[in-house]
Amino acid sequence: MMFRVVTLFPEMFASVAGASILGRAIDAGHVSVELVNPRDFTHDSHRTVDAPPYGGGPGMVLMAPPLFDAVEAVRRQYAQHEQPPTVLLSPQGTQFNQRIAGQLANEKALILVCGHYEGIDERFVEHCVDLELSLGDFVMTGGELPAMAVIDAVARLVPGVLGDASSANVESFSDGNRGLLDAAVYTKPADFRGWRVPDVLVSGDHAAIERFRRESSATRTLKRRPDLMKGWTSDNDGDDRNP
Amino acid sequence: MMFRVVTLFPEMFASVAGASILGRAIDAGHVSVELVNPRDFTHDSHRTVDAPPYGGGPGMVLMAPPLFDAVEAVRRQYAQHEQPPTVLLSPQGTQFNQRIAGQLANEKALILVCGHYEGIDERFVEHCVDLELSLGDFVMTGGELPAMAVIDAVARLVPGVLGDASSANVESFSDGNRGLLDAAVYTKPADFRGWRVPDVLVSGDHAAIERFRRESSATRTLKRRPDLMKGWTSDNDGDDRNP
Repeated sequence: MMFRVVTLFPEMFASVAGASILGRAIDAGHVSVELVNPRDFTHDSHRTVDAPPYGGGPGMVLMAPPLFDAVEAVRRQYAQHEQPPTVLLSPQGTQFNQRIAGQLANEKALILVCGHYEGIDERFVEHCVDLELSLGDFVMTGGELPAMAVIDAVARLVPGVLGDASSANVESFSDGNRGLLDAAVYTKPADFRGWRVPDVLVSGDHAAIERFRRESSATRTLKRRPDLMKGWTSDNDGDDRNP
Repeated sequence: MMFRVVTLFPEMFASVAGASILGRAIDAGHVSVELVNPRDFTHDSHRTVDAPPYGGGPGMVLMAPPLFDAVEAVRRQYAQHEQPPTVLLSPQGTQFNQRIAGQLANEKALILVCGHYEGIDERFVEHCVDLELSLGDFVMTGGELPAMAVIDAVARLVPGVLGDASSANVESFSDGNRGLLDAAVYTKPADFRGWRVPDVLVSGDHAAIERFRRESSATRTLKRRPDLMKGWTSDNDGDDRNP
C-alpha cells in the first residue's frame, strides 16, 4: 500500500517513518510513504503557498493552485480506473475511527493532504478532495501528525505488517473484541510492590480466563465509554456503534 | 511549559519537535520536550521492557517496573506540591478534545507516557497514571503519535506560541467560534479555474462578511457535525457539547 502525502513539512515524516512497526513495514515493502511538497508547484520566486483570507481576519490561508497541482501530479501516475482517494486532514472532517481505517486499508494507494495555517481555500476542498478526515475535536498546528496517525492506523491493518496476524483482531474497537475496549492485561512480575496479578490469570483455567477478560472488557467499557455499549446486548457485530 | 515524555522510541520525536510552529516554540523557550526511555530503567542485560501476558494470548505487555521507575525519576525533579499530572496515551482513555487541551495548557509540566505493544500492565495504569487519554476510536502502533498530537494541541494554547494571539480563539471548537466548525475560507486568486470567491468576501461590507462567516460555520457544522450544535440555540458558552 502506498501513501502519497502532500505536505509543506516533509521533514516531519522522516523520523516517524523510520521507527517502530511502521519503519519495519516500509523496510519489508508492505507499505511505502512518498512525500510531495506543494511548494514545488509554485511559480513565483518566493514559492508562495499561502495568502491572507478574502474578507480579512487573522492568519494565512493555503492557496488552491499549488495544492491542486501537487495532487494532480500524483494522480497522473495512476490510470483513470485506479485513481487513489484524496483525503484532507482537517478539524472540519469526519471523525476518523477504526471502521474507516479498515476501509482505507483496502485501497492500493491514498493521497493524504495536510492542511496548515488558518485553513485551506475552500475551492480546493470542494473540487479536489474526496474525503475530509479529522482526528477529533481538537486543533493542531497542521495536518502532518493527523496524517501520520492515519498512516499508522491503516498500515497496521495491511496484511503482513503486524507480526502476529491475530493481534489486530482482538484489540480495542475491533470486531474480534465486540467493538469494546480491551480487557486489563498483566505481565510479570506476579507481585509488584505488593500488587498481585489476579489469581485467575495464573490459574491455567482457560475458560475462567476468557470469562475474566470478557468481563474486564465489558466493565471498563461500561465505566469509561458507555457509548460503545449501545446495541451490545442485542445481536452485535461490532459495528453497531457506527450505524 | 515542559512536556516530559516517557517513550521507548525517543527518536520518533526528533523531526517533529524540530519542525513548524512547535519547533519555533521550543527555540523561543515557550515550551520544551524532554524524553525519558523506560529502557534506561531496566536492570537485566537484555534491558527487557515487555513480556507475554499472564493468562496467554498474542503480543507482548509492557512491564510495570521500568515505567514506574521512569515516571518516578521525573517526579523526583518536582516538589510535592508541583507534581505534574501523569497522562497515559491509550485507546482505552477519555477522548482528547479542545477543552482538555485548554485545561492541560494551564499546567507547568506534563508527564506523557506512551503505550506500546498489546498493552500496559494494569498495575502501572491503576497506581501511577492520573489520566488516560485517547485520540479517538482507532488503534495505533503506539502512544508516540498521540503524545505528539497532545503536545501540539496543548503547546499552541501556551501564551506566546502562536504569533497572532487572536488566531487560536476563532478557530474550530473554540469558544470564540461558539464551539462550531470554521467557516469556509478563501484566498487569492479571486478566480481559479473559473471558480470565483464569493462576492461578499470582496465587497468590503464587514457586517455582511461577518454574517456570511457565521452562516457558513453554522451550515457546515449542521451538515457535518450536528452533534456540535446541541444546545446551540440556547445561551451557549461553547462548552455545551461537553457537558
